[in-house]
Amino acid sequence: MTPLKMKALQPLMRKVMEEYIAFNRVLGLKVESFDPQAPKLRFDMRPDLVGNPTRQILHGGVISATLDVAGGFVIMLNLVAAMDSVPTSFPNMGTIDLRVDYLRPGRGKYFVATARIVRKGSRIAVTHMELHNDAGELIATGAAAYLVG
Amino acid sequence: MTPLKMKALQPLMRKVMEEYIAFNRVLGLKVESFDPQAPKLRFDMRPDLVGNPTRQILHGGVISATLDVAGGFVIMLNLVAAMDSVPTSFPNMGTIDLRVDYLRPGRGKYFVATARIVRKGSRIAVTHMELHNDAGELIATGAAAYLVG
Amino acid sequence: MTPLKMKALQPLMRKVMEEYIAFNRVLGLKVESFDPQAPKLRFDMRPDLVGNPTRQILHGGVISATLDVAGGFVIMLNLVAAMDSVPTSFPNMGTIDLRVDYLRPGRGKYFVATARIVRKGSRIAVTHMELHNDAGELIATGAAAYLVG
Amino acid sequence: MTPLKMKALQPLMRKVMEEYIAFNRVLGLKVESFDPQAPKLRFDMRPDLVGNPTRQILHGGVISATLDVAGGFVIMLNLVAAMDSVPTSFPNMGTIDLRVDYLRPGRGKYFVATARIVRKGSRIAVTHMELHNDAGELIATGAAAYLVG
Repeated sequence: MTPLKMKALQPLMRKVMEEYIAFNRVLGLKVESFDPQAPKLRFDMRPDLVGNPTRQILHGGVISATLDVAGGFVIMLNLVAAMDSVPTSFPNMGTIDLRVDYLRPGRGKYFVATARIVRKGSRIAVTHMELHNDAGELIATGAAAYLVG
Repeated sequence: MTPLKMKALQPLMRKVMEEYIAFNRVLGLKVESFDPQAPKLRFDMRPDLVGNPTRQILHGGVISATLDVAGGFVIMLNLVAAMDSVPTSFPNMGTIDLRVDYLRPGRGKYFVATARIVRKGSRIAVTHMELHNDAGELIATGAAAYLVG
Repeated sequence: MTPLKMKALQPLMRKVMEEYIAFNRVLGLKVESFDPQAPKLRFDMRPDLVGNPTRQILHGGVISATLDVAGGFVIMLNLVAAMDSVPTSFPNMGTIDLRVDYLRPGRGKYFVATARIVRKGSRIAVTHMELHNDAGELIATGAAAYLVG
Repeated sequence: MTPLKMKALQPLMRKVMEEYIAFNRVLGLKVESFDPQAPKLRFDMRPDLVGNPTRQILHGGVISATLDVAGGFVIMLNLVAAMDSVPTSFPNMGTIDLRVDYLRPGRGKYFVATARIVRKGSRIAVTHMELHNDAGELIATGAAAYLVG
């Protein structure tokens, strides 16, 4: 697909990511970049997302959920980019497994998740993901395998 | 701590798990068993927790979040049980890393997460976790390492 | 395939596992059980397999390697069992990813690895693995995803 | 420790890595760089290391073992660098868990493993690792958590 056609699909892809996928809405995820090499999802800190009331840091589950979404998003972008024409439905895929390394307490005003594809097969894709806070600190990293196509 | 004292702490531990930890409330987690060998957390399917609008299945992030909570819960129960007296604050611990294997689509009316400790050191604990749906199908398994004490 | 035909294939499968796969021979792996539900591989402690000369315990790499082999073995047994006739070549498969939890120091005269399938799809299989020592202590657990068929 | 003192320790650290740790010798690991930011271990392809006789590729266990060693090596280098004086014994540490993503078939004349520290706490360190072949292709990546100090 041409970059132009990809660009035309962005509003729809944003709607899918930010609204149609209900739990993404709960997390408050917003697409900040559609770059297929390194897309970005952003969300603001909110009281609902806290995991430790004393320390006021992100719940580990918010981190793992966001990293999983970021991995799926980079794959979706690449699958769509590889299509000949505008898809009538979004590509089907499923997470096989996920690993998250929690590196620093999830402290910040907002957080940005990125992902890149490290293996891209006809059936399997593997992604690496990172979550940074607004100060640019690396909060967590992840790796996931996805079944595609 | 005697089983009797442990029992007396259950209302407080329930409050921590179900209310004080804000994101647990978002997930709708309810403590179903305080058994330190195999505690149980339950949550109902809700539109908010859906990850795939077409297939109406659980978001992968709900699954990873719940398994992480279940792993932390079994450790908390065992740390509290090992204390001589009623704790004035809950034990501090942090997830080091988490792996989730997504085995079946997250379809069901409600889901139950369980966990057990497979390594219990003075500084590190490792847990294995499982998520079943209301039909008893195994939806996902997990493994996590925690820093304790 | 009938159990009788499966049994007739055991000498060949043993040869593959113990001899044709060169690094299995380095590890000294021997098939102890062909049970497709819970096959067993055994190996003896040897100076070559030590990872810590002071403590004389297994090298972590011996543990991860053995668990990976055990996961592949249980899948091979199930793929062969599902075939209509005697295969002319062994089924093709590849490890997608592997997680190992090191629970106790690898101390013992011999070790036994087991595996079971927790997800069995047409393209993906997931296995859980365990390594015990001769005293029955759980040394390590593992989880792996495989591409099959 | 000064860089000069670190340099003086290299022959001893090489001996530990290449000879004292018996299974490293089986793998044929050679230290190619002592850079604490990105040390390198190299090994040559050998018939003993093959996992698939038809395809003549590395055994998955060789890959997981080498990545685990690389992660431990980068931590050892950093622990030694942080010491005030020449250690009388090498720092004690243990792998808590390991994840390996197998990205491409392990084909090549030789392979180089690198590692970097992504979390460096007083008790826990987390490393990311990579294995490339002689053509510079990324064969596998890994993540591991270690107990230190």
